[in-house]
Amino acid sequence: MVERVVVIGGGAAGASAASRAKKLKPSAEVVLIEATNMITHGPCAIPYYIGGIVKDRSLLVTYTPEVFERERGVKVFTSTVAREVDVDKRVVVVERGGRSYEVKWDRLVLATGAVPSIPRVPGVNLGNVHVVRHPAYAEEMLQGLAKASKVAIIGGSYLGLEMAEALLRMGKKVLLVEMESQLLPKAVDRELAELVSKEVLAKGVELHLSEHLEEVVGKNGVVSAIATNNGVYDADVVVLATGVKPNVGIAMRAGVRLGVTGAVEVNEYMETSTEGVYAAGDVAEKVHRVTGKRVWIPLAPSANKEGQVAGANAVSGRALRFPGVVGTAVTKFFELYIARTGLSEKEAIESGFKVASAVIKARTKAHYYPSHSEVVIKMVVETSTGRILGVQVIGWEEAVARYIDAVAIAIERGMTIEDLFFSDLGYHPAVAPVWHPLIVAARVLSRGRF
Amino acid sequence: MVERVVVIGGGAAGASAASRAKKLKPSAEVVLIEATNMITHGPCAIPYYIGGIVKDRSLLVTYTPEVFERERGVKVFTSTVAREVDVDKRVVVVERGGRSYEVKWDRLVLATGAVPSIPRVPGVNLGNVHVVRHPAYAEEMLQGLAKASKVAIIGGSYLGLEMAEALLRMGKKVLLVEMESQLLPKAVDRELAELVSKEVLAKGVELHLSEHLEEVVGKNGVVSAIATNNGVYDADVVVLATGVKPNVGIAMRAGVRLGVTGAVEVNEYMETSTEGVYAAGDVAEKVHRVTGKRVWIPLAPSANKEGQVAGANAVSGRALRFPGVVGTAVTKFFELYIARTGLSEKEAIESGFKVASAVIKARTKAHYYPSHSEVVIKMVVETSTGRILGVQVIGWEEAVARYIDAVAIAIERGMTIEDLFFSDLGYHPAVAPVWHPLIVAARVLSRGRF
Repeated sequence: MVERVVVIGGGAAGASAASRAKKLKPSAEVVLIEATNMITHGPCAIPYYIGGIVKDRSLLVTYTPEVFERERGVKVFTSTVAREVDVDKRVVVVERGGRSYEVKWDRLVLATGAVPSIPRVPGVNLGNVHVVRHPAYAEEMLQGLAKASKVAIIGGSYLGLEMAEALLRMGKKVLLVEMESQLLPKAVDRELAELVSKEVLAKGVELHLSEHLEEVVGKNGVVSAIATNNGVYDADVVVLATGVKPNVGIAMRAGVRLGVTGAVEVNEYMETSTEGVYAAGDVAEKVHRVTGKRVWIPLAPSANKEGQVAGANAVSGRALRFPGVVGTAVTKFFELYIARTGLSEKEAIESGFKVASAVIKARTKAHYYPSHSEVVIKMVVETSTGRILGVQVIGWEEAVARYIDAVAIAIERGMTIEDLFFSDLGYHPAVAPVWHPLIVAARVLSRGRF
Repeated sequence: MVERVVVIGGGAAGASAASRAKKLKPSAEVVLIEATNMITHGPCAIPYYIGGIVKDRSLLVTYTPEVFERERGVKVFTSTVAREVDVDKRVVVVERGGRSYEVKWDRLVLATGAVPSIPRVPGVNLGNVHVVRHPAYAEEMLQGLAKASKVAIIGGSYLGLEMAEALLRMGKKVLLVEMESQLLPKAVDRELAELVSKEVLAKGVELHLSEHLEEVVGKNGVVSAIATNNGVYDADVVVLATGVKPNVGIAMRAGVRLGVTGAVEVNEYMETSTEGVYAAGDVAEKVHRVTGKRVWIPLAPSANKEGQVAGANAVSGRALRFPGVVGTAVTKFFELYIARTGLSEKEAIESGFKVASAVIKARTKAHYYPSHSEVVIKMVVETSTGRILGVQVIGWEEAVARYIDAVAIAIERGMTIEDLFFSDLGYHPAVAPVWHPLIVAARVLSRGRF
């Protein structure tokens, strides 16, 4: 009998799991344990809070603990740190207000999320070095930034770019350091990254590619500059956006098996190697539906769904299966929208595929319709089969970011460029050209066959 | 040996077919015969030309005949009417400048498109009665509208709505008559049509549903009013947007078989019942990929693709197959975007499916992100399998019209609501909520299962 489900972590995955378990089994007691003072927080919102687009900090969470308890029937313990899990005794040892307690569970869901990766260089602990993490720290960062005039961002992935926009909106001078030779190195191939760089430079960011942070230089205990392998640059504040890693400490100590990616190994039911223990969200591995391999892609939509699956299965057995992800992601830098799904060309080659690719430019609307803009699409296909492996889209209209949904589904379903070419995509002169840009890309890759 | 391909009709399907045939077999002579003085014309542009959004009439065509001839190597005969086809002698009898000629062909592509359906009521031939048709007549309509103050539009489908916007933009008073009890009766179900009506009324259109035109009333040979089954309404100009029908005259007379829909019957290779004769575009039937039944849905994107297939197969045998359509269509009325794919609930029931449906409202962006708006989605599924049969989307942002592409592909692939729920759709706070509105709709239809 499942009488008590304990969920560790009140973010997307944890809140979804708790909510789902209670909903499916109202008689069970469901307990949600969260280390900070907020749950259902949206870390994706932080750059928009910092940049002043989101004005009200209370919006950074979907539910207060009180409302969540009342509406979902889940017991929420905030400011409560889960220290250890004893899988034999089936208890979690938690610390709250300086005291330790044991919380019993019949089923446990690990949803401890991700934590920032901090570069191991001198000076990272100086004053005015900020890490983009949990919204609980957003206010602190905002205060730290108030008097800064020049900010150095370390890391040119999604978060680094979004923070660059936020800081420019605050009126700061921004310097961005990325150790790879392109922006968004894990998301898009070089051709598209160069378009992003162009826009980043156009907005006034001082961009340093192929440079890595060697030291944060301090003066009186606070940042005064950063040193890379290529130079020393003045900065009042340093923002570390150097990626995240799965927060697996408690899982490891409990003997729950980690996978090849370093995240908690789970099967499609979100079951870990330990009976009665599930994992969901950023702490867990996912299967990549193109390669079939285990990957670690920490994003909110899959975290929510994995939470659903873990919560449902914790109380109902193997009720739901999580089929994995195809690596869809969307970001924007001011009005430049960037979306990707599947494998980049680099990833596809690394995964052993023999590939062909094309980069096309197309109009977003009928040629005669005013206010159209240009969209750039890179499509990567398996040479032998024409199967679509990945697509990257860049454009200056929000609508182009939505192209990626159609492709994500096409990739999940193993569609070829011919399948896509003949798909019945929507057309209206004000919304798309009659030959949809995705269809143009498929056509170019057919090399004259259609 | 295919030495000469003749294509009748220079619209989307015909131009695509001619272009494709010549490209794949440069040694063949490809002849394109067009009755008007323009080819590659975009009838979808007419409302935007009338409404002043598209300012330059030359933009209503993609290519002039001269440029098309030069760039595509196709011989173009404009102002040339194809009168008869003799399938035994393999000639088309054409009329040009008052004289008749015989044009020989080895392969013939019928791309004669559609013609307006004109209601058979008294007065439709009066002055100031206009029919929205080929762009060659757009200028005439514009001149006819110049002095009008009140315009009656007959027909509340895509074109009627788009013309209503155009006429409002011109500063006209607009009266819209639709014989069905809702707008867009072939496109969306009642719940969504009511949202369209609300917007149409809000923009000042005098809307008459459940009324059919009985007479166009004239005075001195020009329109002065319209009479419906419900009343007589003053009008200076009448715009007939009462639908179209396949332009099958020449095909019929040549003995080419018509299908159940009244359009030319074709197989997936776009072959008609007559050897060597292909048909493509609005003159031809299509297969509906949800029902497997033959339908007649005259839209530009499939016309273009059918033209490609017909042109390729005319010179290369069975090189390409056209798999059919799922009925995707997009329209807009000012800033209200309306998109649909698959079957409406009404259509699904008529096709014999046992269905469940849900209408949901959702935000278009993360709850904390400003400038989000509301999107309304109706999703129709087969009860026994959960297979998605159709989706209708209405919203006040262009991006929501793009939702339909993802669903079109999902429907083509026979996906269930569970498949859609677990699809890796894109998320970014400025672009979509973490639970994508389509996923919310799938979830609601799962009735608590996920």
